[in-house]
Amino acid sequence: MEHGSVLVDLFVLFAAAKVLGELFEHVHQPAVVGELLAGILIGPHVLGWVSADADVLNVLAELGVIILLFTVGLETSVQSLRQVGRLAASVGVLGVVLPFAAGAGLMFLVGADNLDALFVGAALMATSVGVTARVMRDMGAIGTPVARVVLGAAVVDDILAIVVLAVVAGMAAGGFDPVGLVVLVLLVVAFLGIVLFAGPTLTRRLSTLVRLPGIPESPFLVAVLLTLGLAALSETIGLAAIIGAFLAGAIFEFRREEVATQVEPVYELLVPFFFAITGTHLDPTVFTDPAILGLAAGVTILAIVTKVAGGWAGALSMGSRQAFTVGVGMVPRGEVGLIVASLGLSLGVISQNLYGVVLVMTVVTTLMTPPILGPLMRRGVEGDAEARSV
Amino acid sequence: MEHGSVLVDLFVLFAAAKVLGELFEHVHQPAVVGELLAGILIGPHVLGWVSADADVLNVLAELGVIILLFTVGLETSVQSLRQVGRLAASVGVLGVVLPFAAGAGLMFLVGADNLDALFVGAALMATSVGVTARVMRDMGAIGTPVARVVLGAAVVDDILAIVVLAVVAGMAAGGFDPVGLVVLVLLVVAFLGIVLFAGPTLTRRLSTLVRLPGIPESPFLVAVLLTLGLAALSETIGLAAIIGAFLAGAIFEFRREEVATQVEPVYELLVPFFFAITGTHLDPTVFTDPAILGLAAGVTILAIVTKVAGGWAGALSMGSRQAFTVGVGMVPRGEVGLIVASLGLSLGVISQNLYGVVLVMTVVTTLMTPPILGPLMRRGVEGDAEARSV
Repeated sequence: MEHGSVLVDLFVLFAAAKVLGELFEHVHQPAVVGELLAGILIGPHVLGWVSADADVLNVLAELGVIILLFTVGLETSVQSLRQVGRLAASVGVLGVVLPFAAGAGLMFLVGADNLDALFVGAALMATSVGVTARVMRDMGAIGTPVARVVLGAAVVDDILAIVVLAVVAGMAAGGFDPVGLVVLVLLVVAFLGIVLFAGPTLTRRLSTLVRLPGIPESPFLVAVLLTLGLAALSETIGLAAIIGAFLAGAIFEFRREEVATQVEPVYELLVPFFFAITGTHLDPTVFTDPAILGLAAGVTILAIVTKVAGGWAGALSMGSRQAFTVGVGMVPRGEVGLIVASLGLSLGVISQNLYGVVLVMTVVTTLMTPPILGPLMRRGVEGDAEARSV
Repeated sequence: MEHGSVLVDLFVLFAAAKVLGELFEHVHQPAVVGELLAGILIGPHVLGWVSADADVLNVLAELGVIILLFTVGLETSVQSLRQVGRLAASVGVLGVVLPFAAGAGLMFLVGADNLDALFVGAALMATSVGVTARVMRDMGAIGTPVARVVLGAAVVDDILAIVVLAVVAGMAAGGFDPVGLVVLVLLVVAFLGIVLFAGPTLTRRLSTLVRLPGIPESPFLVAVLLTLGLAALSETIGLAAIIGAFLAGAIFEFRREEVATQVEPVYELLVPFFFAITGTHLDPTVFTDPAILGLAAGVTILAIVTKVAGGWAGALSMGSRQAFTVGVGMVPRGEVGLIVASLGLSLGVISQNLYGVVLVMTVVTTLMTPPILGPLMRRGVEGDAEARSV
């Protein structure tokens, strides 16, 4: 009866995530660090208390991160995103160009072939905004300019990343397809255009459509349909599912406060699974193989430095310290780096060792961000509060 | 990128379940019928719109039915369960003995060997109360005496069923282990005793334990930990996970109304997945094979008649019509019948054909109940309301 073990796994993951999360909160650290740590500890590589198939757990993790980004989107608005549009675009562009160039450059220097170099470059490009969004939310800082720039930049970043990835994957598959690329760009532009400009009106329309006579209207139901729908559509086009979920929250304008209250328990149930399950993917023994470790250290340092530099340079008009916080917020690669590396592996372009390198880079950039971003955001929020109280 | 397909599957399942569910509600039928129908239609055997691995979807279904039974438990209380204790016990005992005897007897008549006969008997015993609980909840009838008797009887029923199953499985595995059986019975009795008598006090204690200084107390968090914990424990002992989830709700006494409000959106998100995914398991073409169909029809009719008769006879002191409703509420076998059949298959006792027979019985008893129980409960609720208003 394998379901037994899944339920035990879920209980152990949830309980460990919550215990460590609350302990971290108790010492004024982001709870998410405790949740990630819980996953690492009870994962297959350390204590080995989780026996369920990875795919089975990943569907819960996926639902968790989608709820997280929908919630973050609810606390943002399309208008506030448009306000930081130019800044977000420059952070997004620099945050893609620098890591890609540096990653590919390093690989050329160590003698890798073209495709290897391009794939490592591509894996360094994308930002996975889930971890950053969670830290900012734990700090009550979703409404700050820094948060809005990071969220906007992550959308820009993801769009550029899939275009570059399409080109690189096309080259690896034996030919570059310019028509396919144009179609992809048009699709993404159409998706974003429709969602951001017609979205708020559409959700209001949708909410009247689902209201049959004799059935109580449920804004939460509309929210779930919109979020799952845009996340699935976004992933079908080639963007990350969390971009669709974030946009669903941002455009949702049908009894918004009520839905924000209703989504809280769903968040409390599902989001810890995302971080604990993400933690289970880290195999700490990877750090004991010196062959992988050298290259991994180089790639990881580049991944961090170039994102921070790109974010900082792009957001410099906000002042140097805020711009630095934006840069740190862009560092985590999360699942996006892994998707790129898995694609390279399945196309037969990159080796298992190079896959290991990307894995280390992804996990380190994801895990290192909360303990650094937390204090930076806290000082920012407290600075704001002081400025307001003066 | 297989995650893409899982998300699309989730969206399609949820949207179809909600559209058909609301349509059924609109014509005053239980929404759950629409949700089951949605699953049958888009499942692999009809339209084939769902491509995800069954195990991946089942974890969501499992979480959904656990939330359902926790919610039903919240609307019940330990005290009200104790009030119907004697009635529930007689319904539970008769509802196990009659189907087991009839199922095994029919198999002997058609010439099956001992183990085949005992396994089919065992598959007919257990009640899966998820479907019935949902129908009663859709009708606003969880507080009625009929509902309390059915819920209590399902607990009794499940306990007897695992004891019989342990004996039968022991015989199939080559030897009956009396010590193991005694240990099992003691475990189950200890579990129930501790949960029902010390449970309410324990949840109040637990709620103060998790309250660290500086962290807001969260009754919902306590509820999630208790529910996942008791469901996992219940399944580990050998009882159905939903029995643990139901008991978690029944004993939960820490800001109960607040938790009941908070669990609603979680219910709205996850419960439709249980019914839609249950629907996807039905292969309607099974009804076209005359070889299976004859035996399946016989077993299914026996499964229905004996449960209704057992429930009716056990609850006769409530009056004949109420007792009949109790009997109908005990009919669905849900996943419990399947677990028994899978066990028989994996022990090499029963054949694929006999497995098909049990599958048909399980699906038919599960799907036929809502459209019959709905009107019965409605008349009951309206009768109550009239009686009260007089």
